[in-house]
Amino acid sequence: MTQPCATEIRLASRPQGEPTLNNFETAAVDLPELQPGEVLVRNTFFSVDPYMRGRMNDSKSYVAPFAVGKALDGAAVGQVVQSRHPGFLPSTWVASLCGWRDYFVAPAQNLRIIDATQAPASAYLGVLGAPGLTAWVGLHDILKLRSGETIFVSGAAGAVGSVVCQMAKILGCRVIASAGSAAKIAFLRNQLHVDSAFNYREANIEQELREAAPDGLHAYFDNTAGPQLEAALGRMRNHGRIALCGAITGYNTPVPGPRNLGLAIGRRLRLQGFLVVDYLHRMQPFLEETIPMVRAGKLLHQETIIEGLQHAPEAFISMLRSGDAHMGKMVVRV
Amino acid sequence: MTQPCATEIRLASRPQGEPTLNNFETAAVDLPELQPGEVLVRNTFFSVDPYMRGRMNDSKSYVAPFAVGKALDGAAVGQVVQSRHPGFLPSTWVASLCGWRDYFVAPAQNLRIIDATQAPASAYLGVLGAPGLTAWVGLHDILKLRSGETIFVSGAAGAVGSVVCQMAKILGCRVIASAGSAAKIAFLRNQLHVDSAFNYREANIEQELREAAPDGLHAYFDNTAGPQLEAALGRMRNHGRIALCGAITGYNTPVPGPRNLGLAIGRRLRLQGFLVVDYLHRMQPFLEETIPMVRAGKLLHQETIIEGLQHAPEAFISMLRSGDAHMGKMVVRV
Repeated sequence: MTQPCATEIRLASRPQGEPTLNNFETAAVDLPELQPGEVLVRNTFFSVDPYMRGRMNDSKSYVAPFAVGKALDGAAVGQVVQSRHPGFLPSTWVASLCGWRDYFVAPAQNLRIIDATQAPASAYLGVLGAPGLTAWVGLHDILKLRSGETIFVSGAAGAVGSVVCQMAKILGCRVIASAGSAAKIAFLRNQLHVDSAFNYREANIEQELREAAPDGLHAYFDNTAGPQLEAALGRMRNHGRIALCGAITGYNTPVPGPRNLGLAIGRRLRLQGFLVVDYLHRMQPFLEETIPMVRAGKLLHQETIIEGLQHAPEAFISMLRSGDAHMGKMVVRV
Repeated sequence: MTQPCATEIRLASRPQGEPTLNNFETAAVDLPELQPGEVLVRNTFFSVDPYMRGRMNDSKSYVAPFAVGKALDGAAVGQVVQSRHPGFLPSTWVASLCGWRDYFVAPAQNLRIIDATQAPASAYLGVLGAPGLTAWVGLHDILKLRSGETIFVSGAAGAVGSVVCQMAKILGCRVIASAGSAAKIAFLRNQLHVDSAFNYREANIEQELREAAPDGLHAYFDNTAGPQLEAALGRMRNHGRIALCGAITGYNTPVPGPRNLGLAIGRRLRLQGFLVVDYLHRMQPFLEETIPMVRAGKLLHQETIIEGLQHAPEAFISMLRSGDAHMGKMVVRV
């Protein structure tokens, strides 16, 4: 069996502000012969995520920056094509961190076998993948959300936010959700059945929160930072909790800090930043709880699929713009 | 025994920005006859504290605003003069929340007996009072500070900050302290023996923290908010903790929020606001631990005493200016 030639997408240059197609390039690479313990995987889907924007800057962060001239990476699911590891037979579905390419060779120990009979393989990039785990950890470990509480979720139509909304509803909470387009608001209302939803680009955010949460917010799941964080701070109840999960508003350009952070003293607020990478040990209990919900149709597996590896840069740029182009998890089908 | 006529200091008008003497007025009031269970107390010392500035605004907060035309209040210590409660004999030392006046009548149940043989009575307004408890709760309950860690303390020469510095040193931590004058810096270095101290008004705060904490900060005890909070955020280690205790920088005029709050995500920071009023149940264990430290001279009881009830407004204004005029706890001797 000969090795296929792989195609990968590289960072051609570091974006200044909003990325453009010129920041990406496509390259063909020869794959190495398999060594013992290695497998050759053909990706079926890979993920484009907001956090990747930060990695395109040359700045110190919790993950190393992408290198210019090298392939991008990120979550992917695919099937084993060739194997020199007895536990990974050909056709086995695996999740990896080797996205943005069609084929790759890797040590089997870097891969995680997924059960594609329980849910569509692409779901393991979304509701059953890192975004779903992020939502679950954020609600349970960080916010310690309890039934009957009121929670505000920004970026609520995205991969993480859409799972947060649904899990909070299942828990018996009142959910206020925001997103950036009319179509997303309709999705939040009609498909995720949140209690209240508004378009943060058009609404008076303070007023929306005041009307939707007259008694204040017990919790805020922050995917955006910026003006929504400031408005949420102003609406928090005493002893409220804020999960700092994402700051998509400031990924392309910096935004001012919340001028009312001082409210955190008198209201005894807790703001907690977190990263899902610290909670990978919770993947198994998370999947055990979540797969049945997906199978029962209680947890909508919403995704926007972009066809073709070569369109991944457009998908990524579009996701950061938070336009109408996608709902839920955005994945690229290779 | 006839009732003395009491003198009290009232809020004459709400300050706009920095308070002035015109915002205060002195008034004579007749005291009521004692009812059963009540005592008449002569105040010896009372406290002027930064949080009182917030109460001078007509805005909703964790404590009701001061009313215009009514007496101010706050922590005080004094001695019982007359009593209709068997547990409070004349001469008993008591702590109350009836400051800013010389005499008052109150139900004995609102008072707490203090042991003035163990420490000077005024210490129960500082290191053994709410400021000391604030420091202790902040270090133990909020920051969960551990031996060997590096902590930055802003407002470090103040009533709370000076206790934080000393307790952190006793715990075996590296302490970086900031204050607003050369005299305070000398006090921090020579009397509190912090590892590093700088004048935040003159220094490049980022550079000071970089040099004093090359490996970053495990914890930050924030008494100021503003630029020091922003600089501390930039220096926090992964999983760092920030206790939001005070925001004196913004008490008179609003300050911008920290533009780098987004760092809290990647570094998994926790920012926790707290109020000592939620921890009054910990006063007894706090005193049991702290009184011996004060008696042994391990915990310096630093205070600035202003003589005379009539000078309390000046003392308060001066404290907010954070000038050279005082170190540690500022108290007024009646």
